[in-house]
Amino acid sequence: MLFQVEMTVKLPPDMPAELAAEIKATEKAYAQELQRRGKWRHLWRVAGSYANVSIFDVKDNAELQELVSNLPLFPYMDISVKPLCRHPSSIREDDS
Amino acid sequence: MLFQVEMTVKLPPDMPAELAAEIKATEKAYAQELQRRGKWRHLWRVAGSYANVSIFDVKDNAELQELVSNLPLFPYMDISVKPLCRHPSSIREDDS
Amino acid sequence: MLFQVEMTVKLPPDMPAELAAEIKATEKAYAQELQRRGKWRHLWRVAGSYANVSIFDVKDNAELQELVSNLPLFPYMDISVKPLCRHPSSIREDDS
Amino acid sequence: MLFQVEMTVKLPPDMPAELAAEIKATEKAYAQELQRRGKWRHLWRVAGSYANVSIFDVKDNAELQELVSNLPLFPYMDISVKPLCRHPSSIREDDS
Amino acid sequence: MLFQVEMTVKLPPDMPAELAAEIKATEKAYAQELQRRGKWRHLWRVAGSYANVSIFDVKDNAELQELVSNLPLFPYMDISVKPLCRHPSSIREDDS
Amino acid sequence: MLFQVEMTVKLPPDMPAELAAEIKATEKAYAQELQRRGKWRHLWRVAGSYANVSIFDVKDNAELQELVSNLPLFPYMDISVKPLCRHPSSIREDDS
Amino acid sequence: MLFQVEMTVKLPPDMPAELAAEIKATEKAYAQELQRRGKWRHLWRVAGSYANVSIFDVKDNAELQELVSNLPLFPYMDISVKPLCRHPSSIREDDS
Amino acid sequence: MLFQVEMTVKLPPDMPAELAAEIKATEKAYAQELQRRGKWRHLWRVAGSYANVSIFDVKDNAELQELVSNLPLFPYMDISVKPLCRHPSSIREDDS
Amino acid sequence: MLFQVEMTVKLPPDMPAELAAEIKATEKAYAQELQRRGKWRHLWRVAGSYANVSIFDVKDNAELQELVSNLPLFPYMDISVKPLCRHPSSIREDDS
Amino acid sequence: MLFQVEMTVKLPPDMPAELAAEIKATEKAYAQELQRRGKWRHLWRVAGSYANVSIFDVKDNAELQELVSNLPLFPYMDISVKPLCRHPSSIREDDS
Repeated sequence: MLFQVEMTVKLPPDMPAELAAEIKATEKAYAQELQRRGKWRHLWRVAGSYANVSIFDVKDNAELQELVSNLPLFPYMDISVKPLCRHPSSIREDDS
Repeated sequence: MLFQVEMTVKLPPDMPAELAAEIKATEKAYAQELQRRGKWRHLWRVAGSYANVSIFDVKDNAELQELVSNLPLFPYMDISVKPLCRHPSSIREDDS
Repeated sequence: MLFQVEMTVKLPPDMPAELAAEIKATEKAYAQELQRRGKWRHLWRVAGSYANVSIFDVKDNAELQELVSNLPLFPYMDISVKPLCRHPSSIREDDS
Repeated sequence: MLFQVEMTVKLPPDMPAELAAEIKATEKAYAQELQRRGKWRHLWRVAGSYANVSIFDVKDNAELQELVSNLPLFPYMDISVKPLCRHPSSIREDDS
Repeated sequence: MLFQVEMTVKLPPDMPAELAAEIKATEKAYAQELQRRGKWRHLWRVAGSYANVSIFDVKDNAELQELVSNLPLFPYMDISVKPLCRHPSSIREDDS
Repeated sequence: MLFQVEMTVKLPPDMPAELAAEIKATEKAYAQELQRRGKWRHLWRVAGSYANVSIFDVKDNAELQELVSNLPLFPYMDISVKPLCRHPSSIREDDS
Repeated sequence: MLFQVEMTVKLPPDMPAELAAEIKATEKAYAQELQRRGKWRHLWRVAGSYANVSIFDVKDNAELQELVSNLPLFPYMDISVKPLCRHPSSIREDDS
Repeated sequence: MLFQVEMTVKLPPDMPAELAAEIKATEKAYAQELQRRGKWRHLWRVAGSYANVSIFDVKDNAELQELVSNLPLFPYMDISVKPLCRHPSSIREDDS
Repeated sequence: MLFQVEMTVKLPPDMPAELAAEIKATEKAYAQELQRRGKWRHLWRVAGSYANVSIFDVKDNAELQELVSNLPLFPYMDISVKPLCRHPSSIREDDS
Repeated sequence: MLFQVEMTVKLPPDMPAELAAEIKATEKAYAQELQRRGKWRHLWRVAGSYANVSIFDVKDNAELQELVSNLPLFPYMDISVKPLCRHPSSIREDDS
């Protein structure tokens, strides 16, 4: 089941550089693990911003909450979620 | 080059049903042609709405404008566009 | 799986009264059928408005889209959707 | 008498972790007590966020204010309130 | 129990003048009856607008819905509602 | 001459508790004095929030500014103001 | 007593040209009369728009309402109002 | 003197096709004349929309108003205006 | 050439009182000098707020930027700007 | 390929003056280098603000992201991006 998730990162300007670097490194490792597991199906940078557009593939709402709320950057992001499904004009049989 | 395009359809309530059906049929054929040509890479329905989330793959801004402005539903949609590029945490080499 | 759905009805001021009455009657029958089937778990009027707050219980996003887009009032409503799941402070085991 | 209450938690990024943990523990105990007393009828997490959708059942506006303003997280939340009542299409006799 | 209700009237520009006059006359009679019954406690014009600020005194949310939704101008108004209660700094014992 | 004034209090999360208590006590005394003088005609809590709806009765805009800007909480509040006057459907002769 | 009034004109696109011309002519005459009487102290066009910024000088809120609601274009305008008074840094003794 | 002007065209859905074509042709001729006279310095389409971003070069606010309000599409556009001037980091001597 | 400038002051709550007082004193002197030079033609307090409505009279956009950006409170204000010109219904020959 | 980029600078009020000066100097050098390389085609100050309107000329979305995210002021700016292309009414052959 797919969800579009849009995330905008807003780090506090006075966060120490090392702490920021550490959080980002953990975030990157976590994001790549979720991609490898097929949960984070697409991940794009929005050009000209510190934001991304993502497509998550989860079994239900609870899994979406578990995956997103465990993002190391979760406390520092504005996040919007849209549930997706197959579009009647799509040429694919599944919702991919 | 990828763009996220979000479209919300707002047909005038007094549009004759046959006209609406005709526009939607033309739209569907056009959308499927663009998908087959690889220009409209993803097309999802936003659940609970008359809206979609799409990913377009075009060679430049001009092609995006040409494809989107020729949508039969173009005069009846609210459309937002975001330029996308590869995210540094993506596990894929290209921007897919 | 639960979703909060908020619907605000905006009928065109020049819709003939009989047509409006007919749509509302069909809507009511459809809403009551979905409640009986357990799909439309809660339905409340927002006091002082022509709007409701609803909780849908569906098996996935696609079913939510199917149920909501078939509402007779669907073309005349502003609709917002939020995916819900169990809250860690809830005293119930399921997500009810 | 029912009210929909939506709460979004925004803890200051520099709040000490122990203080945050303490506030959250107190909040959880308080939320569960209100649920057991039947005042906080429903409590759902909004998937992908640090927010909830709640239904309160109180005897009047004053009781709503008393219960909500005593939430330990009250100073750190954006809160919106909507008064609810029975919907004419509901299949239940009361406003549940 | 008090509610602040703000109403902004938006009549369709093509409504026939006689119809508008008739609706306004019925609205006025209804508003004055509710004032006499003590349900519509305060009614003020917002200067420079076709809007009002009102205080309703009702026994519960359902009565608020019944009174407001029966306003002859109800289909032509933007309405916002806020539940009120006694303020701890008020010098009055009741919530008046 | 009446004005509706809506105030939402936003104290900085790191304000020392004693300072906050002192400001609130001064605010309360000031608010009660203005009520006794007939300047602050109504003061209601908005249920579920740290906000109020107020009606001020002043001789002109300058007096409104003087009274509101001297509120001890003035630097910590979002404030909106609407000028009021007698509504043509009011059953009272004055603007009360 | 001064008020800033901002007006944006939104004529229905299907209003007959003669009717629009007639309303505008009446509006102009009325606006000039109010200027001559000293009630409409300033009237500026916002460059690049069908909008104006105005300063009204009235004896109270009720007079503001009377003058503004009698504008021939009143049903076709978005209007915002701000009460003004003397600024402590102004070099003039009055509020002009 | 430069102004950024952003225009979004919103033609009524029921405007006859010939009328729309005529207005657009007049608009195009007028826009090209202003470009040749050096008044409309830049004109870009916003990709994926019926909107443009423009830079006007006028001698004062009054000329901006005259040029923009005479656009044949003026009654059908949402327009926003921003006054521009030389940026201190610009490498050009003038404001071009 | 006239511009309407609206300024809302938002001082950081933890700014030392002496620093705030010093900035305000410098601001007042600067504002009064600009008024005496005829550049800051009108300056009004918005009643019930820490905001003003101003009319600037400058020779071009660059002078507006120079005057406004040198305000001592500039880093602490939300500022909006509207270019003004003579209104066709104004009874004055110039744009005053 | 052109993009309009609008940037509003929001420096934290407690940033040390030397640090702010250093960032601004680096920003200026970087902005001028990009202008000389033809990447930052236009750069205007929005009069009365700490904001600019810019036109970037890049080969694709990825280059836009690279250039913008390396701005020294990037962490302190609100940025909005619009993809541009040739307007059919433009008198120029290219999109300049």
